[in-house]
Amino acid sequence: MKRTLIEHRMDSPDAFPLSENSFFVRLRVSKGERFDKVEVLYNDKYDFPKKQYHLKMIRKGGDATWDNYEAILPLQDRRLAYIFRLVRGGKKSFFSEEGLKDNYDFPQSYFSFFQYAFINDTDIVKIPSWAKKACFYEIFVDRFNRGDGSKDDSYVNMRWGGKVKTDSFAGGDIKGISDKLDYLTGLGINALYLTPIFLSKSNHKYDTIDYFRIDPEFGNSDDLKTLVSLAHGKGMHVVLDAVFNHCSSDCKEFQDVVKNGDKSPYYDWFIIHGTKVNMRKPNYEMFASCSYMPKINTSNPEAAAKLIEVGTHYIKDFGIDGWRLDVSDEVAHSFWRAFRLAVKNANPDCLLIGENWHDSYSYLEGDQFDSIMNYTLTKACLDYFAGERPSAATMAERCNHLLMRNKAPVNFMMLNLLDSHDTTRFLTSLHGNRSRFYAALAFLYFYQGMPCLYYGDEIPLEGGYDPDNRRCFPSRIPEDSFLGRIKGLTALRRMPLFQEGDISVEEENGMLKVKRSLGRNEMSLFINLTDGRKRPKTGERLLENGWKDGFLEPNGFVIAKGE
Amino acid sequence: MKRTLIEHRMDSPDAFPLSENSFFVRLRVSKGERFDKVEVLYNDKYDFPKKQYHLKMIRKGGDATWDNYEAILPLQDRRLAYIFRLVRGGKKSFFSEEGLKDNYDFPQSYFSFFQYAFINDTDIVKIPSWAKKACFYEIFVDRFNRGDGSKDDSYVNMRWGGKVKTDSFAGGDIKGISDKLDYLTGLGINALYLTPIFLSKSNHKYDTIDYFRIDPEFGNSDDLKTLVSLAHGKGMHVVLDAVFNHCSSDCKEFQDVVKNGDKSPYYDWFIIHGTKVNMRKPNYEMFASCSYMPKINTSNPEAAAKLIEVGTHYIKDFGIDGWRLDVSDEVAHSFWRAFRLAVKNANPDCLLIGENWHDSYSYLEGDQFDSIMNYTLTKACLDYFAGERPSAATMAERCNHLLMRNKAPVNFMMLNLLDSHDTTRFLTSLHGNRSRFYAALAFLYFYQGMPCLYYGDEIPLEGGYDPDNRRCFPSRIPEDSFLGRIKGLTALRRMPLFQEGDISVEEENGMLKVKRSLGRNEMSLFINLTDGRKRPKTGERLLENGWKDGFLEPNGFVIAKGE
Repeated sequence: MKRTLIEHRMDSPDAFPLSENSFFVRLRVSKGERFDKVEVLYNDKYDFPKKQYHLKMIRKGGDATWDNYEAILPLQDRRLAYIFRLVRGGKKSFFSEEGLKDNYDFPQSYFSFFQYAFINDTDIVKIPSWAKKACFYEIFVDRFNRGDGSKDDSYVNMRWGGKVKTDSFAGGDIKGISDKLDYLTGLGINALYLTPIFLSKSNHKYDTIDYFRIDPEFGNSDDLKTLVSLAHGKGMHVVLDAVFNHCSSDCKEFQDVVKNGDKSPYYDWFIIHGTKVNMRKPNYEMFASCSYMPKINTSNPEAAAKLIEVGTHYIKDFGIDGWRLDVSDEVAHSFWRAFRLAVKNANPDCLLIGENWHDSYSYLEGDQFDSIMNYTLTKACLDYFAGERPSAATMAERCNHLLMRNKAPVNFMMLNLLDSHDTTRFLTSLHGNRSRFYAALAFLYFYQGMPCLYYGDEIPLEGGYDPDNRRCFPSRIPEDSFLGRIKGLTALRRMPLFQEGDISVEEENGMLKVKRSLGRNEMSLFINLTDGRKRPKTGERLLENGWKDGFLEPNGFVIAKGE
Repeated sequence: MKRTLIEHRMDSPDAFPLSENSFFVRLRVSKGERFDKVEVLYNDKYDFPKKQYHLKMIRKGGDATWDNYEAILPLQDRRLAYIFRLVRGGKKSFFSEEGLKDNYDFPQSYFSFFQYAFINDTDIVKIPSWAKKACFYEIFVDRFNRGDGSKDDSYVNMRWGGKVKTDSFAGGDIKGISDKLDYLTGLGINALYLTPIFLSKSNHKYDTIDYFRIDPEFGNSDDLKTLVSLAHGKGMHVVLDAVFNHCSSDCKEFQDVVKNGDKSPYYDWFIIHGTKVNMRKPNYEMFASCSYMPKINTSNPEAAAKLIEVGTHYIKDFGIDGWRLDVSDEVAHSFWRAFRLAVKNANPDCLLIGENWHDSYSYLEGDQFDSIMNYTLTKACLDYFAGERPSAATMAERCNHLLMRNKAPVNFMMLNLLDSHDTTRFLTSLHGNRSRFYAALAFLYFYQGMPCLYYGDEIPLEGGYDPDNRRCFPSRIPEDSFLGRIKGLTALRRMPLFQEGDISVEEENGMLKVKRSLGRNEMSLFINLTDGRKRPKTGERLLENGWKDGFLEPNGFVIAKGE
């Protein structure tokens, strides 16, 4: 017996309020399943049993499992009830919380309709306005630029530009970033994400000793204030790296436990299996298997309060615009809920970006993060542009799967990246193929969300896995750099079409087509990795801005339609 | 092209920690899809790329859409990664976050495995110990029993036991409940849910004027303290009704806004469309279309703080054991998160039961309610026992669908009910068929969760829709009452099998079979609504305790297996 597979769940990525008077609804049907017509029947939940409004749903491309019908309901009342009516071959059926039935008992519908009982303002997912325009740039601080020539640099153990090792210190600092702000704004960058800058013994500083002290290798509080102030003056936003999953074993709290065991007031700030710390044969929870990075017990109220204080301190006293949250998937949901309340109270426009490499809906429902580092998209790009090379159709399904994972507004805040300090550089995964790298970058800027360059992508810099992916940014930009092309891409983000526009990803004529649309405006990127002779259909004109040099060929075409 | 439909999502009803060292995993496959073998490959997420443990999954019955494979993973480490390996016809395939593939790239698996990154204690769904044993009893206070003979009863406008109308006041009170505690414990009841008792002008008191004052019609603070104290002395728990979605238009805050409009400090405690309140043509959000019940704006911090104070006050100062939350689905998630933190801080064992009639996963993830009133189960029972009479197989699918909606521990806390003050009495929906009513009650007590009788179900009392479902509890129990049978059912809840046991619901030989199992213990309820001659298979003995009178026949048999 073949059954029609249909899925819909209230208050999920398939059903959520966009505002107090509009509601997004998606009905999933098993791949390839088609109906002549799918409608939403809806009304105020108290009136629904007697009267329903009808709205036709639009068929949209789905992932490998589902095809979608979608609609946005205009509401007069904030208390919504709805069901679906499906028509095929003249036969009607109804889909409600009770499943698919040939008929529906409207008078008793209060038992079985789908509902969003009341749209409360605080439950609507909000997008900080700057996030929609953000062009991010990640900086590994020790390697980007040295600005302070007079600091004690006895810790520097390599010449700038030399081969980097795991324990190299090159001398980059906060002032060095301030010095290059004009370069970055010239590139079209308007948001910075800095790897950690707080006191630590390592070059990466992911093992924090004191969250309230800027590492002197990188500068001081004034340097950070200057950077934020200069950046804000140029319309840029600054996001710092919050390492709250773990800290350095040298921090005073852990050292107190090392000394005093379970008599220490900080004993419960960590998760220690025993009454005393054993550092040689670690008997405590830690990051990965790094004994010098003990895990912080964020379920402990005092530890949590301290970290939350860090979170608000740099927002209130330094004016930073958000946090990238390191290893955020290993930290308690309960902690992130409290953290969000505090930092959003300090600045509702601050942005919280988790370092979650996996499906993260349970962090992105609106009560914890705004965004995550979209490494699943990274992997899809690696496979498509560099790796096993799935077909354009498969790539489109993977992209749609990612877009369907979260409530649509979250997609506008995702940090989309090709590489970072934690991956091989994308260009190197492409064996240096610049044309293909550019196609991947164009894809990134066409995609919904916040594109993030890793410092040097614009040169473009090569680099294998850590530490090679953390080379020094060159003192002189090479003449054959990517800069001009990057400027062309960042320019897209200044268009409302790319800030607000819908996205569709599909295969067309063997090519990957990424279309953004907003009202009557449309622009599509075609990527052709298989056959250089294939081109988009005629009747559509190639865009005439900076793309006309055909650099994308044979890897891409950009097409604009509408006004 | 036919594709195999498989679904799995991390940190969902299909994947969650049961404890720090055990993890529940369910893989959904489209109905009827079968594999020769399904395994979970898993390990600590840092070791997974190199080494995986294997565990075979067990096939379980599903709902109308899905069949399930399930496993509970024993863990050495709190950082879990896993994928699924499926075998059919000798051919292996792998299911990860990237979907179903013929092979899997283990070295790069950190991009695509499913994971629960770290099991933090505060994210584990906990079940208050008393909830597992709870036999609930809902009391509509004005109609259950009058205990205070000396109070000013000039408000009483009907004789006890007479025909009730919408505006009837019968005189029942808190002392009347205290007086009947022995009767209730004799019945096996150990948890009370009282409809609202705070100051209000109506008989139902869902329009609160003052949350800090017991309505004098029902008694005073001492009466409530006495009730709670007596109940606790008998091992009973007491849950009150919290009406926080709306209040009475007579409450002082709303009256201040009526008087002062947007100049009132309470203006933002409500949602008013305009600067002044118009009560004749209501210009404010309210419950349903009741102008005398203005909606409270729980997104306002002061209003929220006041209600949270109510929540903790009755826990700290009166010792109540939980709240039933009226119209909870129309209240902001953000409010319930803050509310839960405060009341669980006051008493971690207090129980929060939302009045959500619909799919409510987004309230039951562990950060808001423990439970809801399971009206969807009510409707399935209405359809099966009284209404359109779906087959036993369909009823089983509906039950399984409900059991799959939430993380399994939540199922143990669901308030399962056949009727309430908001529905027609179940017996009346059955046109008075007592045998069938008893079968439905047996089903309720066999099901996973907390069964809740509505006062008088044990008599059994009849009653149509409001106000007829709120008749006075008879002063004398009729001789042909149900009491003995109810005692037999509540006795089940004292068995670990029913407190802790797994549940399976399926069709067998045309009958509905509800099986509970715990270790080697098993007990099954068979319900036969179609053919009186059908009986459970031979080789299973009928249970010998109070059921042997065969009352259930032809509607049910109870069978015990194991020890």
